[in-house]
Amino acid sequence: MRITTLCGGVGAARMLRALLTEFPDAEHVAIVNTADDDVIGGLSISPDIDTVMYTLAGANDDERGWGLAGESWQAMEWLRRYTNSSGRHDLSWFNLGDRDLGTHLYRTSRLAEGAPLSEVTAEMVAAWGLPLLLLPVTDDPIATVLRTDRGDLAFQEYFVREQHAVEVTGVRVEGADSADPAPGVLNAIETADVVVVAPSNPIVSIGPLLAVPGIRSAVAARRSAVVAVSPIIGGKALKGPADRLLSELGHETSAVGVASIYADLAGTLVIDEIDTPLIHQVEALGLRCVATPTIMSQPGVSASLARAVIEAAL
Amino acid sequence: MRITTLCGGVGAARMLRALLTEFPDAEHVAIVNTADDDVIGGLSISPDIDTVMYTLAGANDDERGWGLAGESWQAMEWLRRYTNSSGRHDLSWFNLGDRDLGTHLYRTSRLAEGAPLSEVTAEMVAAWGLPLLLLPVTDDPIATVLRTDRGDLAFQEYFVREQHAVEVTGVRVEGADSADPAPGVLNAIETADVVVVAPSNPIVSIGPLLAVPGIRSAVAARRSAVVAVSPIIGGKALKGPADRLLSELGHETSAVGVASIYADLAGTLVIDEIDTPLIHQVEALGLRCVATPTIMSQPGVSASLARAVIEAAL
Repeated sequence: MRITTLCGGVGAARMLRALLTEFPDAEHVAIVNTADDDVIGGLSISPDIDTVMYTLAGANDDERGWGLAGESWQAMEWLRRYTNSSGRHDLSWFNLGDRDLGTHLYRTSRLAEGAPLSEVTAEMVAAWGLPLLLLPVTDDPIATVLRTDRGDLAFQEYFVREQHAVEVTGVRVEGADSADPAPGVLNAIETADVVVVAPSNPIVSIGPLLAVPGIRSAVAARRSAVVAVSPIIGGKALKGPADRLLSELGHETSAVGVASIYADLAGTLVIDEIDTPLIHQVEALGLRCVATPTIMSQPGVSASLARAVIEAAL
Repeated sequence: MRITTLCGGVGAARMLRALLTEFPDAEHVAIVNTADDDVIGGLSISPDIDTVMYTLAGANDDERGWGLAGESWQAMEWLRRYTNSSGRHDLSWFNLGDRDLGTHLYRTSRLAEGAPLSEVTAEMVAAWGLPLLLLPVTDDPIATVLRTDRGDLAFQEYFVREQHAVEVTGVRVEGADSADPAPGVLNAIETADVVVVAPSNPIVSIGPLLAVPGIRSAVAARRSAVVAVSPIIGGKALKGPADRLLSELGHETSAVGVASIYADLAGTLVIDEIDTPLIHQVEALGLRCVATPTIMSQPGVSASLARAVIEAAL
């Protein structure tokens, strides 16, 4: 069985981990959003790819919710000696752990040699010994830009630097028009037994991935095999600004809002059991709807959710 | 009193530290070689500037002889997980400590914004609270290239990666012809009471500095105020490949060889007392010669050497 999962960051990583655990004999492909990739301090950062890699390797820090376990912060501390002195705090608002820097140094060196991101990612996945094909959605540069009253912001600037304390009035994906799906991406969608849309932010994680030409139509063509998982539970995102972004951009902040975004792409929406009352509204939009526990930090939920997602498509 | 010191890395840093200690009321300017500067893993590294900064700040690791005290190596360790797996050891032969990475992140960010190296360096010197003007010799890119039978090598590639196990048949400084001295550099040479040529490698540290148009003639015009310190003691360099480079490039591996290289630029050569028998040979080349203890790791030598150097010019 082949399972292809469309991924953003943390929520997708946990979904993937559950799928790999419950279906270890399947061929797994993860297609990961790269529209939050950026160059910081000269280093090429791919936040969603790294989150997926670290989580699947069991190397992530579950308590912090991001980054590596056992991490140290010497580089950032010493960078801030300079930015504190010069007042250039805008050059140190991010957080790159010392171990994490090893990942960025490798990626930056290889990209600088002309290696495509997909090739570098494959090398890193091999180093971590992960049993899946992990593909950036594209090897070409794409970038999510949020329009706010503090100007255009990249997602990390919006979320970390501005602490998402600004209203978002629009989203675009720069570079999408001229980007090509990375090698293997379309094939992974076309030949999968199940295409899973992970419970990532529909606006800034899954949306940009779908904006790469060819992706959206490839997913829509497989609609009956596509199962999306709602990241909105009881009207809220478990973490991150997905709920606020949905409402600021005119969508209903609920599993129904998610269903309306994915109606053309997913034959089934899996929602949390707390949203059982919304099943009929979801089905009214043309999707099948399955309610099941979806909060993966709860014992046993990862396993049951992974099984429910796959069973919904088969 | 104004003291301007021409500097490479470690040897120069110790000389500077001694001069600052013995002459705290003087105005000190350090002009530092940038021909070993390079981009590694996306980061802009200035090894000689960093060595001077760290040493003067008392933050250097005296035991290791380079880098910061209290350093950790998480980034390199985790980078090597990738390079060990992919076999790309050529991407991890260097060593960048975690604390050191803070310096490189700051520099890289500022250079990427278009700030000249001299401006960034001034910000870093201010953050360290150092009481001198520290100038890169130029804000323009220059690079020392060593011709060897393993092809053209940058100095770090020759010294660290190849472990200087190849013969050097030639040296050139790329970019020198079109480089300008950084702001303040020529003035610092022209108005100094004493110009000190630190005991750095004459071939790959001081030579490239002098190769920037205008520098060599500015120093030569001040010859009577210029005091060079021999890095070759008893026919050997205390550390590094200066002795081998001298002989491979056709110079005598001794204080006399150093004198012949600096004859047009320095009115006085300070040599180690062990080389007292060479005084007449140095003087025969037209330089005054002063023999005194020069091994600064020995107690009291830093102080006496600094005083001897300044007194030789006044």
